[in-house]
Amino acid sequence: LAHRLEGIPPTVFSEMSALAVRTQSVNLGQGFPDVDGPPEVIARAVHALESGANQYAPGPGLPALRQAVARHQLRHYGIELDPDSQVVVTTGCTEAIAAALLGLVDPGDEVVVLEPYYDSYTAMIQMAGGVRRPVTLRSPHFRLDADELRAAVTPRTRFVLLNSPHNPTGTVLTRAELQAVADVAIEHDLVVITDEVYEHLTYDGAEHVPLATLPGMFERTLTLSSAGKSYSFTGWKVGWATGPAALVGAVLAAKQWLTFTSGSPLQPAVAFALDEEPDFPRALAADLRARRDLLCDGLAGIGLDVRVPEGTYFATTDIAPLGWADGTAFCLALPERAGVVAIPTQGFYDSDAGRHLVRWAFCKDTGVIEEGLRRLAAAD
Amino acid sequence: LAHRLEGIPPTVFSEMSALAVRTQSVNLGQGFPDVDGPPEVIARAVHALESGANQYAPGPGLPALRQAVARHQLRHYGIELDPDSQVVVTTGCTEAIAAALLGLVDPGDEVVVLEPYYDSYTAMIQMAGGVRRPVTLRSPHFRLDADELRAAVTPRTRFVLLNSPHNPTGTVLTRAELQAVADVAIEHDLVVITDEVYEHLTYDGAEHVPLATLPGMFERTLTLSSAGKSYSFTGWKVGWATGPAALVGAVLAAKQWLTFTSGSPLQPAVAFALDEEPDFPRALAADLRARRDLLCDGLAGIGLDVRVPEGTYFATTDIAPLGWADGTAFCLALPERAGVVAIPTQGFYDSDAGRHLVRWAFCKDTGVIEEGLRRLAAAD
Ligand SMILES: CSCCC(=O)C(=O)O
Ligand SMILES: CSCCC(=O)C(=O)O
Repeated sequence: LAHRLEGIPPTVFSEMSALAVRTQSVNLGQGFPDVDGPPEVIARAVHALESGANQYAPGPGLPALRQAVARHQLRHYGIELDPDSQVVVTTGCTEAIAAALLGLVDPGDEVVVLEPYYDSYTAMIQMAGGVRRPVTLRSPHFRLDADELRAAVTPRTRFVLLNSPHNPTGTVLTRAELQAVADVAIEHDLVVITDEVYEHLTYDGAEHVPLATLPGMFERTLTLSSAGKSYSFTGWKVGWATGPAALVGAVLAAKQWLTFTSGSPLQPAVAFALDEEPDFPRALAADLRARRDLLCDGLAGIGLDVRVPEGTYFATTDIAPLGWADGTAFCLALPERAGVVAIPTQGFYDSDAGRHLVRWAFCKDTGVIEEGLRRLAAAD
Repeated sequence: LAHRLEGIPPTVFSEMSALAVRTQSVNLGQGFPDVDGPPEVIARAVHALESGANQYAPGPGLPALRQAVARHQLRHYGIELDPDSQVVVTTGCTEAIAAALLGLVDPGDEVVVLEPYYDSYTAMIQMAGGVRRPVTLRSPHFRLDADELRAAVTPRTRFVLLNSPHNPTGTVLTRAELQAVADVAIEHDLVVITDEVYEHLTYDGAEHVPLATLPGMFERTLTLSSAGKSYSFTGWKVGWATGPAALVGAVLAAKQWLTFTSGSPLQPAVAFALDEEPDFPRALAADLRARRDLLCDGLAGIGLDVRVPEGTYFATTDIAPLGWADGTAFCLALPERAGVVAIPTQGFYDSDAGRHLVRWAFCKDTGVIEEGLRRLAAAD
């Protein structure tokens, strides 16, 4: 194994989903829905398969998809993009993250990143030779503290890796919090890579504000997203990076060697989804809100301290009220104890600020959530 | 742009395919077929899309596909593999190459690699901080010279990156040539990463011998392949790496952060292809042989020196007889002069051993090849 991978554990999502299958547990761990996205979009993929979209798509992505992504950014956020130079299609947001970090970060560069962090962030920062500078979102409210953010920046800091709506906490950064990021980025001349895959999955009026829309930020912001979460096709792995041509070009420069291109028959279907099913993501969010409440109420009902999220697929709980101190031990015991899989949040922290936290996915079918809750209630 | 990408030009295939579209040229450049693979395989992908294979496949790949890959290696080559630890599914062979190099190569490690080299090899060796040590296949016969191979190895050499059938030359390494690689690898304790994507596309009785089948080689060989070339679905980007668990584990360790997983609805279709359409690739090869001859005869007919390949999608020509000295200039002028796109081989060399060489793809439809030849004849 190369040194760049030393000490990086396997992704917790693979581990926990494998455990769920092995123990026939209800999987409230990995974030994927039980119900697929619009049948019309599937029909469009079928059409693509049957009408010959089976050879290499262009490396930067199918032009129709790049145009649809540009239209999406304009329609939702008023961001104008040149689809030829300011949009690149990737193999899901995961590849966009990998290519952005490999394409931009030099060894020794510091990257400010919100802790708890999605596990690919730390792995890819390390693989790029970067140094992570955590800014911790602390339980129970998981807000961004502007002073902590400022304190994380040093003369070697070149990047912020942002994520809002935030996985795993469910925090949607407010305009004021984002303005603090923008102020720091502009003051220290930082580039911000912002993972906004949950852009449409916000609740109770929490507004997703793309960082790129803040004054002075477009030119220093690389925005990453994907169709997986917005359209409930997590397995299609069609994502994109948008922003100024130089930053998008760095993603393409790395990505062309990582996969070259992918998902030729799926790309036209995603273009169709963005153009013809623009209201699906918000309808999904409305539906997810009900499942969020079902899960959160249920978890509170069995005695957990629940943080009700403003966005994403996930709710976070403090397990201390159940008499557990260690979320990892809790989650490893849970399949056996209750036939349920959840994700220990500690794995997303460097510090031990997440020791008592467990993440639960509510993107699942109502029946699945109910069954999970029944099992948890029976076990306790 | 990060330093690791400095001086790496954009992939020639994107450039030349974009040029082909822009100039409405016949594209004999990038290697993708005009005719898709088996309709039954497409039907299987349609079924997967319509029956819910739209969420994340497991990171290592769908179990059914890993098992089908293991069966494929056993059926064709007598190689026994544990599908759980010795097979990993990737986003095409491109990702397998990227993940193998990022997963195994440390900065300063030397990688012996056949020159001319597929462009992602040099890019990814550089991105991993490795140092390439070329062994040149020289025109007109493009054979592997065992002495040159030995001379390329130094105390810092840790890897050989092999490719047979070889792109761009079309050379299929003989058992004797492969034995020379094996001897050197064993003597110097090297790991060999071998890209065998054209494994089934050999002609005139040239036999593809997987390096892993040579005595003592399985344990030090990571074999990469994909469905793209064997089944004429280059845009699906479903590939795999096979070999001893430690090497396959290194690919997975890197790959989980590059894309995590991809092509969920395509993976079951590729499993079906491997299991249920085992004879397709050889039938494709028989068909390609006729197109190879059509192209090679035509190119010879307009005065080029043609090297008739034993494998792959590609024929190489020496353009000197036409009065041209520089293949890059020739290929840049060709769309305008003749309405045809071909690939300058020089881009795959460090030395200038490829200056007079041009690569032509014969994986295209007969009518396309004929039209290309007509245009070339008219232009000359
Ligand atoms: C790439 S697997 C993880 C899916 C996901 O986003 C999550 O569960 O956090
Ligand atoms: C990944 S694009 C290139 C396709 C191919 O293998 C080639 O043309 O050499």
